[in-house]
Amino acid sequence: MRTSRNQFLLDEEDVPTHWYNILADLDVPSSDVRRARPAAQPAAGAKRSAPNLPLSMYRASVGAERYVKIPDPVREQYQRWRPTPLIRAHRLEQELGTPAHIYYKYEGANAAGSHKLNSALAQAHYYRQAGVQEITTGTGAGQWGTALSMACHALGLACTVFMVRVSHAQKPYRRVLMELNGARVIPSPSGTTEAGRALLAASPDSDGSVAIANAEALEHAQTVHRGAFAVGSGENHVLLHQTVIGEEALRQMELAGEFPDVVIGAMGAGSNFAGLAFPFHRERLRTGAATRLVAVEPSACPKMTRGRYAWDYNDYSGTTPMTKMYTLGHTFVAPGVHAGGLRYHGAAPLVSALYARGLMEAVAYDQKEVFEAGAFFARTENLVPAPESAHAVKCALDEAIRAREENRPRVILFNVSGHGLLDLSAYDQYLAGELQDHAVSDSHIAASLAALPDVDPVGSRS
Amino acid sequence: MRTSRNQFLLDEEDVPTHWYNILADLDVPSSDVRRARPAAQPAAGAKRSAPNLPLSMYRASVGAERYVKIPDPVREQYQRWRPTPLIRAHRLEQELGTPAHIYYKYEGANAAGSHKLNSALAQAHYYRQAGVQEITTGTGAGQWGTALSMACHALGLACTVFMVRVSHAQKPYRRVLMELNGARVIPSPSGTTEAGRALLAASPDSDGSVAIANAEALEHAQTVHRGAFAVGSGENHVLLHQTVIGEEALRQMELAGEFPDVVIGAMGAGSNFAGLAFPFHRERLRTGAATRLVAVEPSACPKMTRGRYAWDYNDYSGTTPMTKMYTLGHTFVAPGVHAGGLRYHGAAPLVSALYARGLMEAVAYDQKEVFEAGAFFARTENLVPAPESAHAVKCALDEAIRAREENRPRVILFNVSGHGLLDLSAYDQYLAGELQDHAVSDSHIAASLAALPDVDPVGSRS
Repeated sequence: MRTSRNQFLLDEEDVPTHWYNILADLDVPSSDVRRARPAAQPAAGAKRSAPNLPLSMYRASVGAERYVKIPDPVREQYQRWRPTPLIRAHRLEQELGTPAHIYYKYEGANAAGSHKLNSALAQAHYYRQAGVQEITTGTGAGQWGTALSMACHALGLACTVFMVRVSHAQKPYRRVLMELNGARVIPSPSGTTEAGRALLAASPDSDGSVAIANAEALEHAQTVHRGAFAVGSGENHVLLHQTVIGEEALRQMELAGEFPDVVIGAMGAGSNFAGLAFPFHRERLRTGAATRLVAVEPSACPKMTRGRYAWDYNDYSGTTPMTKMYTLGHTFVAPGVHAGGLRYHGAAPLVSALYARGLMEAVAYDQKEVFEAGAFFARTENLVPAPESAHAVKCALDEAIRAREENRPRVILFNVSGHGLLDLSAYDQYLAGELQDHAVSDSHIAASLAALPDVDPVGSRS
Repeated sequence: MRTSRNQFLLDEEDVPTHWYNILADLDVPSSDVRRARPAAQPAAGAKRSAPNLPLSMYRASVGAERYVKIPDPVREQYQRWRPTPLIRAHRLEQELGTPAHIYYKYEGANAAGSHKLNSALAQAHYYRQAGVQEITTGTGAGQWGTALSMACHALGLACTVFMVRVSHAQKPYRRVLMELNGARVIPSPSGTTEAGRALLAASPDSDGSVAIANAEALEHAQTVHRGAFAVGSGENHVLLHQTVIGEEALRQMELAGEFPDVVIGAMGAGSNFAGLAFPFHRERLRTGAATRLVAVEPSACPKMTRGRYAWDYNDYSGTTPMTKMYTLGHTFVAPGVHAGGLRYHGAAPLVSALYARGLMEAVAYDQKEVFEAGAFFARTENLVPAPESAHAVKCALDEAIRAREENRPRVILFNVSGHGLLDLSAYDQYLAGELQDHAVSDSHIAASLAALPDVDPVGSRS
């Protein structure tokens, strides 16, 4: 390990050997954090379908073992770019004139450009071990698809990505990255699946959506020999894989000689927030520290701050099993903010359980103030944050400014989950004054909450 | 410092304290490596103009002192991202099945995305010290402009960049990066300068060129209070600043316990090649090692392999002083390859002097084989090289394959001067089979060589 004025770096051998399973430290009925089939039958003609998870991966993520060993081949892959740096933002502190100490963990310095690679590699490993030869997924702007394509290439698996058509056409760079890694990228809705064909018949010019892309990917995976469908957030196992972020950050904060008063992450379905925050939950339990954990969501998709804790489907069409989560309802369609990774209608069951017990906070910000924070961070720290990560930046800046106003020290830690180099067109719109805020009306939310499934779940998992 | 299986990393305090001036180790008349005014008068109406270099920066770059101290404020800036990693490309070796050991220095992991930041920060420092308040430059695809905008922001200077119009319109991402750093970016030809207005009057739809952008920048700098014009390659001082790359690489190769048999860099005007290679020239002189230094140029702009060693202008219009260099003639216009940074008609005087004395080699590659190498490297090493850097990759692969064919060990070191994340559209064209090679005919080169100035230079510098 080595430290400098700005950076706290660990060595290759310091890559954690275990992921952290928060279920060991969370008093919650196991049924609340598993998937469940609805007791009621699906509507006539609708199919029930669920990702077919490798058992070893699934079991570790719903068990009570506190530590789950990272398989050696996965840890070796992690060592290609991990441990990631923890950076003290001295310049940000100076610019803000704050007594706060600001630290950020930077997860964007790998080829996929985001934290998503942590779970993509783990999943590719488990699926390969289970005999899978091709992994399929849906992707929006492409962070998850990019990570999965790289993981599949590294581990010798085929990869098919259904990419939302409007992103496929307008944001080609991540598509090119996926193709460079040998993935087949299909604009969705496509003519290659029943779901896609049905949708195209109804609206030939459809822009597509992540929900549709995932429906196509799920169907495709079932038709492929030794195929499987994988998702990049929300599920317990994904959150588990991401805890490698927080485990490293714990050691790095130790090197820095401080412990955070507040830990901040952007909130899509929750894997990036959980990855950083969960290990700090364990540590504050151990030491009694009063560390706050804060998830940051866009005002355009306020599942935590304005949603309901309820059983709901994970997809728009309601064909997947249900999970108990903070949700705006599976029929909620968020306005088209640039932080596409934060537009999911629900929060991961594990994050939801933490929130329901008052063990964390959530805050929502509008798009323009988020980009203002992101641009300020880019200029000051010389790192353009992804629009998703800029949400965490905004919250960290607010915490630092509050510390200044209260004239109190405060140690702030947040996660820059990815870089924004492939999202510069959004920053361009910000600089040109063309960005919009997207207020979501109470009636809009009430309508989608009214469509929550009116059924009791049974069983714990397919 | 720390080493791992793949990476040889130095600590912040290991950032070199001095740049290396190759003039101390090169038997060359000083007049050959300085700028000179032509003895003949310019054509009626033409203006003579030259960058107005800060004296301290200029003197260090034409003197005989072997080591030039890096000013403390510059070294502090370097420490924000330097030392950069030296990486052993184990996977590449495995994929190629070569006995060669392949190392690359990676200069793309800073906010500007390339080595250009090394000189941009140094120049911004010297200009500020000289009382300059605004730096102006011309840029093509934007690597240099991006670096300069960041350097100016970091040191509190204003920055104006004239950006080739077609790039401004079609490759907006680097423009956005510049604007995020507070630079004013003007599409060139523009209506803001005489040169631009004259050109627009003749061809209102002109796409522009780097030569025109630089002419506008030079004119603009002369109208600005405390303004200056800066260039990103070619000049002695720029090459000097870049030697920080090779000085680090020397120490890192020592950590790896090897010395390169061949050192490779892509060749535009020469700053990235020289930055890595020059310190190895000094070291091979000291130890008697038979290390080869190889510059790689595009077949579309073969100034080294097919040009002439002669006095020539640095700009298309012939208004700047002359330098003695390998050149295709200042009126040579290279075909539009994606490696925009390698389309300059001449080679830096210092690199030219080395080449003329048989102390280095040069090789030229076609565009398609270069992108094939870049894509292979991206898949294998999980790092997309800039199209410019992909030229060095191609040469390194060829060296490694030759080692395999000869069944001999060989230690190969090359420079990945920048990442290609903002050049993915070019890789897209490669994957789609749409890339062209651009053969340059003998008569094309003969014509531009015939336009070489027929004058003897006088003096050593304005």
